[in-house]
Parts: sequence; structure tokens; C-alpha cells
Amino acid sequence: MIAERAITDWWSTAVSEIHPGEIRLRGYPVEELIGRVTFAEQIWLMLRGDLPTPVQGRLLEAALVAAVDHGPQAPSIAAARMAATCGVGLNSAVATGVGLLGDVHGGAGQQCMEVLRRVVDGEEAPAIVAEYRAHRAYIPGFGHRFHPRDPRRDPLLHLVRTAADAGEVPGDALRAGLELEAALADGRDRPVPMNIDGATAIIYAELGFPAQLGRGLFVLSRSVGILAHAWEETEGGARIKGPIPRPLLAGYHGTPERHLE
Amino acid sequence: MIAERAITDWWSTAVSEIHPGEIRLRGYPVEELIGRVTFAEQIWLMLRGDLPTPVQGRLLEAALVAAVDHGPQAPSIAAARMAATCGVGLNSAVATGVGLLGDVHGGAGQQCMEVLRRVVDGEEAPAIVAEYRAHRAYIPGFGHRFHPRDPRRDPLLHLVRTAADAGEVPGDALRAGLELEAALADGRDRPVPMNIDGATAIIYAELGFPAQLGRGLFVLSRSVGILAHAWEETEGGARIKGPIPRPLLAGYHGTPERHLE
Amino acid sequence: MIAERAITDWWSTAVSEIHPGEIRLRGYPVEELIGRVTFAEQIWLMLRGDLPTPVQGRLLEAALVAAVDHGPQAPSIAAARMAATCGVGLNSAVATGVGLLGDVHGGAGQQCMEVLRRVVDGEEAPAIVAEYRAHRAYIPGFGHRFHPRDPRRDPLLHLVRTAADAGEVPGDALRAGLELEAALADGRDRPVPMNIDGATAIIYAELGFPAQLGRGLFVLSRSVGILAHAWEETEGGARIKGPIPRPLLAGYHGTPERHLE
Amino acid sequence: MIAERAITDWWSTAVSEIHPGEIRLRGYPVEELIGRVTFAEQIWLMLRGDLPTPVQGRLLEAALVAAVDHGPQAPSIAAARMAATCGVGLNSAVATGVGLLGDVHGGAGQQCMEVLRRVVDGEEAPAIVAEYRAHRAYIPGFGHRFHPRDPRRDPLLHLVRTAADAGEVPGDALRAGLELEAALADGRDRPVPMNIDGATAIIYAELGFPAQLGRGLFVLSRSVGILAHAWEETEGGARIKGPIPRPLLAGYHGTPERHLE
Repeated sequence: MIAERAITDWWSTAVSEIHPGEIRLRGYPVEELIGRVTFAEQIWLMLRGDLPTPVQGRLLEAALVAAVDHGPQAPSIAAARMAATCGVGLNSAVATGVGLLGDVHGGAGQQCMEVLRRVVDGEEAPAIVAEYRAHRAYIPGFGHRFHPRDPRRDPLLHLVRTAADAGEVPGDALRAGLELEAALADGRDRPVPMNIDGATAIIYAELGFPAQLGRGLFVLSRSVGILAHAWEETEGGARIKGPIPRPLLAGYHGTPERHLE
Repeated sequence: MIAERAITDWWSTAVSEIHPGEIRLRGYPVEELIGRVTFAEQIWLMLRGDLPTPVQGRLLEAALVAAVDHGPQAPSIAAARMAATCGVGLNSAVATGVGLLGDVHGGAGQQCMEVLRRVVDGEEAPAIVAEYRAHRAYIPGFGHRFHPRDPRRDPLLHLVRTAADAGEVPGDALRAGLELEAALADGRDRPVPMNIDGATAIIYAELGFPAQLGRGLFVLSRSVGILAHAWEETEGGARIKGPIPRPLLAGYHGTPERHLE
Repeated sequence: MIAERAITDWWSTAVSEIHPGEIRLRGYPVEELIGRVTFAEQIWLMLRGDLPTPVQGRLLEAALVAAVDHGPQAPSIAAARMAATCGVGLNSAVATGVGLLGDVHGGAGQQCMEVLRRVVDGEEAPAIVAEYRAHRAYIPGFGHRFHPRDPRRDPLLHLVRTAADAGEVPGDALRAGLELEAALADGRDRPVPMNIDGATAIIYAELGFPAQLGRGLFVLSRSVGILAHAWEETEGGARIKGPIPRPLLAGYHGTPERHLE
Repeated sequence: MIAERAITDWWSTAVSEIHPGEIRLRGYPVEELIGRVTFAEQIWLMLRGDLPTPVQGRLLEAALVAAVDHGPQAPSIAAARMAATCGVGLNSAVATGVGLLGDVHGGAGQQCMEVLRRVVDGEEAPAIVAEYRAHRAYIPGFGHRFHPRDPRRDPLLHLVRTAADAGEVPGDALRAGLELEAALADGRDRPVPMNIDGATAIIYAELGFPAQLGRGLFVLSRSVGILAHAWEETEGGARIKGPIPRPLLAGYHGTPERHLE
């Protein structure tokens, strides 16, 4: 009995309760959720433990819709496409892409949420900007090496502002993000506007998600693009697709030919 | 120029088109999609190339909602929870879980879609049942080693039937699934009702998804549960969580102690 | 007690026995193995349950040495290099590369072992060649899309032949491989010589490994190259390295720009 | 030409040079290495760019031999075993296990190498011990939650000492490790002896490997155990193996049953 209790407790969860014929997710019988809640609301329920308000659900949905893809030049997408040509299941191709969404490639949203928190908690945006510049570091969530202005910024911020004006979200993370953006632009010819990581970080922060889940939600969203690209490659029928087509060859800059004694 | 064209073509895609300041997904500017389409509709668009009808979108949504989780006894969930305690990012924990949704653990829906196709194409359900029984094999998508009757079956089938009655989906995969279910029950005291894989396979087939994407869609859905469980473990703060708590020990049934000469 | 025994048995293994202060691998105290067996012999012990003869150990070592790398144009290497720039640990970069060694990219050795087995069991090599040609399929382990003659073939076969001549291995898989190679060359201007997968398949078959472990051993070997490349990229300090450098862009061949109604 | 050069350079490497019929690893034709160098020496060559001395090669070999496995209670091993039952290739099972060797589960050796470096560079071991204790942190590489004294410590340190006495390695990392061990034991009834991570960290540091490669080498070593366990599970034929056998059930401690309004 001791062992049974020990092992039961070891794997105990507050996410789901399963008995023969019964599946409850965060307390709700799954059969009640099917057809009643949106996929975005289900995501919220599973991660937070309670259902969102309709406005909260729609804000989350918008953020998830916005970040699904940025094309095959992203290493996560390219790696998933290559995986799909190597004789593994689609699930492995998705796992490959998701595995690359690490601190540098997928972590900007999470990091931006931490910076937003500092501003919400009372630090001055210009001081934070100065601190990053002193370390020659970029503030995560601002600027884009490809887009002068990220087209996803405006529609996302518009939705947050509307929700804040209606009192549906606090609005403090939005204010923090705009203050950082203004501080970054101050005295510059070329502004450094918020990017997708910054705009979704504002939404996730307004909705009360902890920063680490910023990465988690980005993973759920980007998985859609990863799957779409892997599937396109699967349908194309390529085999063992490398990063460059022949006759192009990877260069070599190492030790010239030599021989064992 | 030859090389440039070669490399441009090598990574060419029909999924997304990216230029400075512009992101189009399947032709639609991303800023038009944000706030306008649901996450389920966005998934459809990315995988299929066009937007679904509202009814199609809601059916897909219901299937995605239904399959998010089945608790920590599933190896995919358990592995993701353990990963979350090993000092990797949440994305790696999700990749770990998704990686386990292979042919056996995540492939039943895909396989069921292939069987449904055979019935839709004219084969008799009882003959297929007999064929599987002759090989002592289970028909994928029917029966459950835990649930006598899967609680997700009825609400999903109800949604499909309603859509078929309204002429929104063909209804042939639904008929095929019910014929298989009836053939499996014929002459048995204990029926072998459709499980989540069978019910979602019917929906994906009715919506025209190819069978391989059955696995892909299951991956997107189950990723939500994987993330929720990994996050619960992260918050719990465990470190290097193994499958069983001490003082319980893995057994040993190998060669007794021996020594090198 | 029932539960304790159940859980102990559930995770029971014949690979290793661990008690406080004691670690035995396949029965041998680990402290006796350290400094006494080579890494290749340790690999054999862990996979097979007993230590190899010195000649067996050296043959395995040669096969492991031969297959470590084939450059960054392989998707497994490219994906691992990209992973190393995304802010994940070196272990995740290795996992990314290993994950791509699927049926198509890493499975040729395993498949070749199955074909060798058919010849050893009495089938005629020319008949098997004819069968593959009738299906327009390549015999796994023969021919190379890059090397007219794989430089790893001769030294590996030389080692096997020497061992067979000395009676240390049976020699039947070697004969089978050479018969297949001769049948493939018969009546052709350009022969289709054995490649690394074929040559290592012969070694693994001569050593008595089951075919599936052919893939496993290739994974151990290629992990070395994957790690070396991931580490080179880590030291280089690139961030979010995609498959092609800017200003080169992935092409787009999908639906032209369109708008939501 | 510009594009060709750009793409050639983008994937340029100093690890391997491949031309039709030629494969050179770090400058050496692969056919010269086969049968001439050990697998451990090949690992060294690939990671470092030059071949080790025989003594260096044997020290590396001993460290690789020592760390291959610690049984199925480790999450990396358990996850790989479960993966092997889910219908994925052995390579995916290995990738699953390797993916879990993150900062917490696989990073102690790397972290220990950084601490050893501080002592070698002149810091006092007792001061470092005091610093860790002030933060209620463990010094990585010392103590074991299972073994009062890790049986792999003594044979590994013996080999290092012998090599240091012969002038084959500097001996400074060994001294640093022993000073830390002594400082940890000082004034304690129960010492905190070096564990496998500490002992291999000393070897890798004596051999001049950078700390990050400490993790990389551990990955190569532990992959052997991961593969052995995954293969044992494959042979056993289990399907969808979860962490606990039925009828044992994961517990539930979440919200009681509730219903949508």
C-alpha cells in the first residue's frame, strides 16, 4: 500500500482526471467541452486551470494566429522540412522544429515579458534601454533583422488597446511596451518598433500568463507552420534533403590534406 | 545567378511569402488574418491552402479540443514531464512528448483514416473486420484498453452527423465508421466502440484531410496537454524526475555478478 | 507489496544493476571495466550482454570509426549545426541530428543487413537484384549519389576478409555482399560498388548484430560527427542560423496575394 | 558566382572535406583512419582537430567507458525506453534520451569543469565551498543522492594520477578536484566524495577540453546506455509503455468535477 500510494502521488496531476469511461480536464468532463469551447479557450483552460472570458479567449487566439510561420529561412522550419525527407513520422518532423525554439530562436517573447514586468513594476523604460545599450544588447521583442516594421505589430496592439479600453485587460503591459518603444526611438532617425515577440508578449502579459509560458504558447503557434512546411516537403517527395542543392558544395577551411605516420 | 536561382528554388514554398514588411500566409496578408480567423481556421489555412467554411472550421476545432490530453500514464506525457525537470526549455519538453507520438502511440488516427477510405471506396466492413481478426490485429480507432466506452465518441459523432445532415460534409466517412463499429459488435456480448482516434479520424476524413495529416493534427492537439503537463512539472520544481520515486528501485533480471579475468 | 513488486518489475532490466555504492553493467562491476575495455568493447558489452573477442572488438571499432561524418550537406549535420545557434544545449543539438537518422537517412545499413541475410539464407544475389530493379528500387548499401567509389569500402572489407581468413568471423555476410555487388555490376559499364552502409552492414552482420542495431550503431558513430559540427557552430557564435544566408531568399510559388472578403 | 560563394561559405567547415571519392576528416583521408585509430581517438580527432597521444586517448576512453549507464531510474533512460515502445525508430529513441541530458540532468560535468578552472586559476577551494554553502547549493561533481561513494571515482582518479606522474597530463585539475573534495569533507562526519561527473570532469579538464564539451562527451558516452536500454525494450515488444503499470493509476489533486454553465 505504501508503494502504491507513493507511485500514485509521484505521477499525480491537477491537469486531468481519468477513470474508466471518464475524462475530466481541469474538472470539466471532456464531452462538455467538445463543441462548446474554442481551441484557444481549451489551451487556456489546460494551462491556467479555468476558462477565459470571451475577450481573453479572442486575444489569446489572435496571438496564436499571428505567430504561426515566418518561412523556411528560420532554422526551425528548415530543420523540420529536412526531417520530413529522412524517413521519420510527421510527429518527429514537428519535434525537430519545436526542439530548435530555444532561448535564442524562440525565447524572445519570454524574455520580453520579463522586461515588461520590470516596467510595470515601476522601473523607467529609458533606464532599461540605457542598461541594454551599455551592454550592447538588444531589448528582446523590439526591432527585426528583416522587417523595418513588423506587419503583425499594429493589428495585435489594436486588439489589446480595445480590450484595455473596455476594461477587459489591465493595459499596463501595453503601456510598458509602448514606453519601451518610445524610449528606443528617442533621439534616433530610425525607430526600433515592436516585433511579433514584443506584441505577443504584451498580450500574454495582459492575460496574466507567466513569462515561461510565453515560450510555450509560441511553441503551440509555431508548431502549425512547422507542420505545414513539413507536410509540404512530405508531399513533394524529396529524400534526404540537405541545406543546399548539388552541385553546390559546402566549403572547407580546415587543415589541408595530411597523412598518418 | 545560376546558384542564386538554384538555392532560391531549393527552399521555395507555397506556404508563406516573406518580404521586408510583408508576411503573407497562403496569399493572405497576416495582418488581415489576425483577429479575423480562429486558431482552428488558421491551422486549416496553413495545411490546406484555403480557409474552411464556418462549419468545417468548427468541426476541426471540436476534434482538436477533444484530443488534448489523456493524463500522465501516456508515455508522451510522462516523458515531457520528466524532460521538464532536466534543465531544458519548455520547447524541448514539448519536443520530447511530440517525438513519442509515433506509429504506435500517435498513429491510430492516421491508420483508421486509411481503413475508413477502404470502406468509403466500396469494401464491405464485415470483410475488413474478418481480415483484421484473421491477423489477430485490432482495427485502429476502435476499442480502448482503458475506457469501455470513450466519452469523446458521442459528442464528436453528433457534430459530424449534424454537419452531414445539413449537407456541409459528405457523411460517407461517418457511415463507414458506423459500419465498422457495427461489424465489430456483431455477435459479441461486449461491443468495441469507436475511440477518440476513430471519432477524430471520421472528422478529418469528412473534412478531406489526407491520412498522414491525421497524425499531424493529433500532434497539434496533444501538444496542448504535453505543454500543460510539462508546465505543471516545471512549476513543481522537481529535479531529474525519474519514472519511480525512491526508495522504489528498478528490478534487475540479468547476468549475476561476474568479474573480468 | 503487490504494487512495489509490480513497479519494480515494470522497470526491470538486464542491462545494469545499481545498488548504493555498486554499479554492475551486464554483471561486471563498472570499476573493473574502466581502463580495461575499449569504448568499442563497452558498446558491444552493453548491447550484446557479453564482451567481444579482441578481433570482434576491433572490427566493431573500425566500423564505428568509418561512419562518423559526411559533412554539412547531410540534413542531420545541417540541422544539428542550426540547432547549436538557437540557444539550446549541445545535447539538444545532438538529439536534433540523431532524430533525423530515420528510415531513409540512417536506415540503409539496417535494410542492407536484411538483404544480406536473404543471400546468406540461400537466395541468389542476381534474383534479388532483378527483384529490386523490377520495382525501380535501389538495393540499400550499394551505390552513392556522390562518390563513384566510396573510399571507406576497401579498408573495411579488407579488415573483414582478414578476420574471416583467420576464422574469427564466419565470412558469409562478406560473400553475400560481394555477390550482390557482382550481380549489380553484371552487364553494366559503370559498377555500383558497395558504400559505407553496405560495408558496415557486412561487419555488423559478421559480428552477429541484429539488423535493427545496424541503425543503432550508425547512430552512435554519426553522433560523433554531429557533435563535432554542432560544437564548431557553437564556437563560431552564429545566432539563429538558417539554411541560406541573406540576402538570398527562399522562393515562393504559392497563391498570389489575395484578401479576406 | 556571388551567390555560390556566399552559400559555400555559409556552410563551410573545418571538420571534414568531401569530394567525389574523397573523404578527409580534419585533413586525414578516412581510409587511413579506419583500422588505425580507436573510436576514442577518432572522437578526439573530430572534436579537437588533431590526434591525441596514446595516453590521452586511453584517458578519454576510460571516461567514456565509465559513464555509459546508470539504469532505468534516470529520466533519460526511462524516456528512451518508453519511446522505443511508441513506434519510432531506434534513432528517435536515442534522440529522446539525449534530449533530456540538459543543464540539470547532464550538465554537472560541464559545471564542475568550470569550478575546477577557478581553482586551477588560483582561487582557494575552501572559499569556493563556503560560497556554494552560502547559497545552499551543491558543488557540481561532488556527492551522489544514491551512492555514498561512487564506485567510478577511484579507478578514474587512479588513471589520471598515473598519467600525471608520468608527465602526460598537467595534473592541475586533479589537484583542484582533490582540494575541493577535501574542503567539502573538512569538519564533516560524512564526506562528500567526487562522483562520476567530478571524476570525468577532471579527466576532460586534464585533457584540455573546453567545459561545454564536457556535456558533449557525456552525451556520447550515455548514448550507449540509452541505446542498450531502448533496444532491450524493443526486443521485449511492449507497446505504448507508460511510467507505471496498470492497475496503478496516476493520482489527481486538481479541481473537483464541475460543469459548464
